[in-house]
Amino acid sequence: MHPFASRPADSVSALGETRLIEAIRGWLGPSSPHHPFGIGDDCAVIPASRHRQLVTVDPVIYREHFDDTMSARATGAKLIKRNLSDVAAMGGRPRAAVVALALDPRVKTAWLAGFYQGLAALARRYQVPVVGGDISSLAGGIVATLTLIGEAPHGRVLTRKGARPGDRIYVTGTLGGSLRGHHWRFTPRLAEGAWLAGESSVRALMDVSDGLARDIHALTPAGTLPLLTATNIPVSAAARTLARTSGRTPLQHALGDGEDYELLFAVSGRADAAAFEAKWRRRFRTRLTCIGHFARKSGSHPEGYLDLTAHHGFEHLKA
Amino acid sequence: MHPFASRPADSVSALGETRLIEAIRGWLGPSSPHHPFGIGDDCAVIPASRHRQLVTVDPVIYREHFDDTMSARATGAKLIKRNLSDVAAMGGRPRAAVVALALDPRVKTAWLAGFYQGLAALARRYQVPVVGGDISSLAGGIVATLTLIGEAPHGRVLTRKGARPGDRIYVTGTLGGSLRGHHWRFTPRLAEGAWLAGESSVRALMDVSDGLARDIHALTPAGTLPLLTATNIPVSAAARTLARTSGRTPLQHALGDGEDYELLFAVSGRADAAAFEAKWRRRFRTRLTCIGHFARKSGSHPEGYLDLTAHHGFEHLKA
Repeated sequence: MHPFASRPADSVSALGETRLIEAIRGWLGPSSPHHPFGIGDDCAVIPASRHRQLVTVDPVIYREHFDDTMSARATGAKLIKRNLSDVAAMGGRPRAAVVALALDPRVKTAWLAGFYQGLAALARRYQVPVVGGDISSLAGGIVATLTLIGEAPHGRVLTRKGARPGDRIYVTGTLGGSLRGHHWRFTPRLAEGAWLAGESSVRALMDVSDGLARDIHALTPAGTLPLLTATNIPVSAAARTLARTSGRTPLQHALGDGEDYELLFAVSGRADAAAFEAKWRRRFRTRLTCIGHFARKSGSHPEGYLDLTAHHGFEHLKA
Repeated sequence: MHPFASRPADSVSALGETRLIEAIRGWLGPSSPHHPFGIGDDCAVIPASRHRQLVTVDPVIYREHFDDTMSARATGAKLIKRNLSDVAAMGGRPRAAVVALALDPRVKTAWLAGFYQGLAALARRYQVPVVGGDISSLAGGIVATLTLIGEAPHGRVLTRKGARPGDRIYVTGTLGGSLRGHHWRFTPRLAEGAWLAGESSVRALMDVSDGLARDIHALTPAGTLPLLTATNIPVSAAARTLARTSGRTPLQHALGDGEDYELLFAVSGRADAAAFEAKWRRRFRTRLTCIGHFARKSGSHPEGYLDLTAHHGFEHLKA
């Protein structure tokens, strides 16, 4: 849906700020808690918790993360799912969200209704109250920024650091479908992330958002190389379809397109891989693939493994 | 400072994302904590706390909240101070901040350095670590959104609700200077807000951000009117200066311009006002003024008091 109204009466400026905030409360429905825990004061209030707190922030920006071909509902859903994926990537669980909107006053009220309804549907599914936010004016654009507060119920947070030489590298799901719609259709791997935080053999965890070729470096311990086997990379059907017309290979799409929102993690090389994988399969239907391991750096790049220097992943600040 | 570079080499796109994040860490200096509590993972981690948590989010947007006449340092300082004022307005204390940047790749690296250095100077003064954030591309614009996590150390949070008929209305500082620079030169009233939360006679609290005439309604209990005496409104010197050329009165500037970032609160009508004010003066040099009280609604607007319907305050979504 094109987000801008041609008639002023259809735009959010016709509503005005006070009625708009009331409308947002309505669109959010049960995801908007009552005072003092929700919208309408200088700050939102969140109950005390004995766990460590997690904080992440990600936006959706018109013409960067969504366009006229994407529905408003899918855009709102994408915004909260991007952030849920970050909480999953620490092994945490989400607690509450705030949404800051910077938008042109000509944005359609109907577009914003769809946006909040899409966001609220996911907020309900993952039990995340939307406790506050802000509305500001931005000429010609839409930037919706969601901050998600989570917590680490296991006491342990799984960071990107902690992998060691010899650790096996795993990835969930399949990679490379973002350009065919996966960038908003994905499922944040919250249950999987929380389970991984409880497994002592799991040493480091992140989500794949800028493409495996780029993101893997953040997980790689100093003095080691990630040795990945090309044939083991779980390439999505969408990446294969795309490759028929894009002039790139399915593997290039899988390694470089970004917005996979799958979990990438390291498991101790001393752990029983078969037992770990069997335990996973008893618990989840989500595909799990061992794509390689971390090896100490030697002189040249070992033959038979993927050379990641040829793949760059997504760069956010292209001029 | 004009934020956009004319030479690509001076822009953030020349740095690229990875080096830009390293640069931001440097500009933040000691306000950027070490892993896992700071920048560089999927989420930031905040230590557990036994207090209720507060969350607020406010942006600064190019051509809305700052322009070429304002320094980059002042812009960064304004961003964190806007949010600190919201935590002050609940009687809380700040804990940690995350910053989401949506910016054109042509933004000057020097502008962004100043922005973060200005933000960091305030973050140090108020002991607020900047624990994470995001960088995304926004063609032609700059939207910097800060989410501030705080907590309520007194157990009590002072919301906007709680005033009763007969309560006295107080405001800190002076009003109406925003158009002459107060919108970024203000001091967030954190110490004052925290002190008010410990005073049982204080029943409701907020900050004045959209102008007193508009904001007072949020504090006003149902079935009452705020009866304000025009001569008691603490009008700033800047509002008087402005009125010489603006075609509006100093009082109009004080009531309607917004961005005062002063505290507005209600004190029980049964409390000893002289004792309360004396206690304040022993503690703070910040000006404190009783500007009126809440009275039960009768038929017509009582004579001798300000008629606020003539003043509208700042509307965020003007078309």
